[in-house]
Amino acid sequence: MQRYFVAKKEENNFILNKEDLYHIKTVMRMKNGDSIEVVYQKELYLCSYQDQIAVPIKKIESSMTSSRVTLIIPLVKEQKMDYILQKSTELGVEKIIPYYAEHSVIKIDGKEEKKLERWRKIVKEASEQSKRLEIPEIPAIYTLKQIGDLPGNNLICSTREKTQNIKKYLTNHKNYDRINIVIGPEGGLSLKEEEYLCSCHFTRISLGNYIMRVETVPLYLLSVINYENME
Amino acid sequence: MQRYFVAKKEENNFILNKEDLYHIKTVMRMKNGDSIEVVYQKELYLCSYQDQIAVPIKKIESSMTSSRVTLIIPLVKEQKMDYILQKSTELGVEKIIPYYAEHSVIKIDGKEEKKLERWRKIVKEASEQSKRLEIPEIPAIYTLKQIGDLPGNNLICSTREKTQNIKKYLTNHKNYDRINIVIGPEGGLSLKEEEYLCSCHFTRISLGNYIMRVETVPLYLLSVINYENME
Repeated sequence: MQRYFVAKKEENNFILNKEDLYHIKTVMRMKNGDSIEVVYQKELYLCSYQDQIAVPIKKIESSMTSSRVTLIIPLVKEQKMDYILQKSTELGVEKIIPYYAEHSVIKIDGKEEKKLERWRKIVKEASEQSKRLEIPEIPAIYTLKQIGDLPGNNLICSTREKTQNIKKYLTNHKNYDRINIVIGPEGGLSLKEEEYLCSCHFTRISLGNYIMRVETVPLYLLSVINYENME
Repeated sequence: MQRYFVAKKEENNFILNKEDLYHIKTVMRMKNGDSIEVVYQKELYLCSYQDQIAVPIKKIESSMTSSRVTLIIPLVKEQKMDYILQKSTELGVEKIIPYYAEHSVIKIDGKEEKKLERWRKIVKEASEQSKRLEIPEIPAIYTLKQIGDLPGNNLICSTREKTQNIKKYLTNHKNYDRINIVIGPEGGLSLKEEEYLCSCHFTRISLGNYIMRVETVPLYLLSVINYENME
């Protein structure tokens, strides 16, 4: 069933936006009385499409519970970034924060707002395709200091020796609500960057033996956190 | 350091193949005495490049231990297939077996050998990029019966209700050496296909709450199996 995100409610009915109406009428060719799913204020409703509005029939209980994960990702080439955004959304990330890493090869001076707009559009589309209730937030491009100030369980994916692995960490920190993970760029985080974050109470964790591409790390992290949360 | 796979050894030295020699001399512009890594019969050696051969200096111990995972994947569009092959290789799959699913949209009648050749080339390149010791094997395109005859711990990713989740299965089957997992096509396995495999002692497992694209499932599986194996 098709799912649409709405922001407006009048009396008891949901007001569909222009692009979604185009999709419903022209792409899906729906008629009055057809069923659609609507997400309003993070709740999911089964609705009947009726003369350009959605009439709620009943609320659908969500069984999706998971830790709230924020991935802090380095600026990478556009194609890789799009991929990270789509796949992270598919796997349930709550928030994505791009940041400026010392060893990042990409510069986007002056184009930050355009890039943010583009990235937010990508996660919105990915959310609809994945039938997610919530669209991941991309607040801004952070500096190292802003990352250091984040509240929650804060981790750095590190390839340095003598680092505990992620499984040891996750099994010893079962009751985590929020978890923020910094992923380094292809060239790795600099020693200075890692030391700064450690001084802000970030913990280094390793991902075991595999050499993973930077764009694979988000999927790996979200998969294992999701898995660890299974009952 | 660059890593090359060799198949020939003469006396004590490794014979580099033509494409690798081109890479060494023309792309990397190496000189006699430069160090390279060589994989021969699944062992890793530090070598010195010398007049078109590789002279071994010492064997390098591998610390990569993991369950041997075979992913049994439905025929999908070429771009998705390439992606599955590359990512699965990156995440340590041992074997990949494509199969004909009832609901698979792709037909490759008459082109099986060409496709197999292409897929094997992709996993070889992906192995080199991921610095893996072993290149994943792609034996053939299997029928359902051939899948049913596979030895080992056999699983089906199922979205049917009342299926135990993968975490319950993996934590209750800690001493698994070989694990074979069937992934269904976008339209899912048919009831008949699932029942046939269950009659061949395949176990259904679910992947929790997320709706994952067919090309994401291999990454998820390899990530969580790798994670479960961490000490």
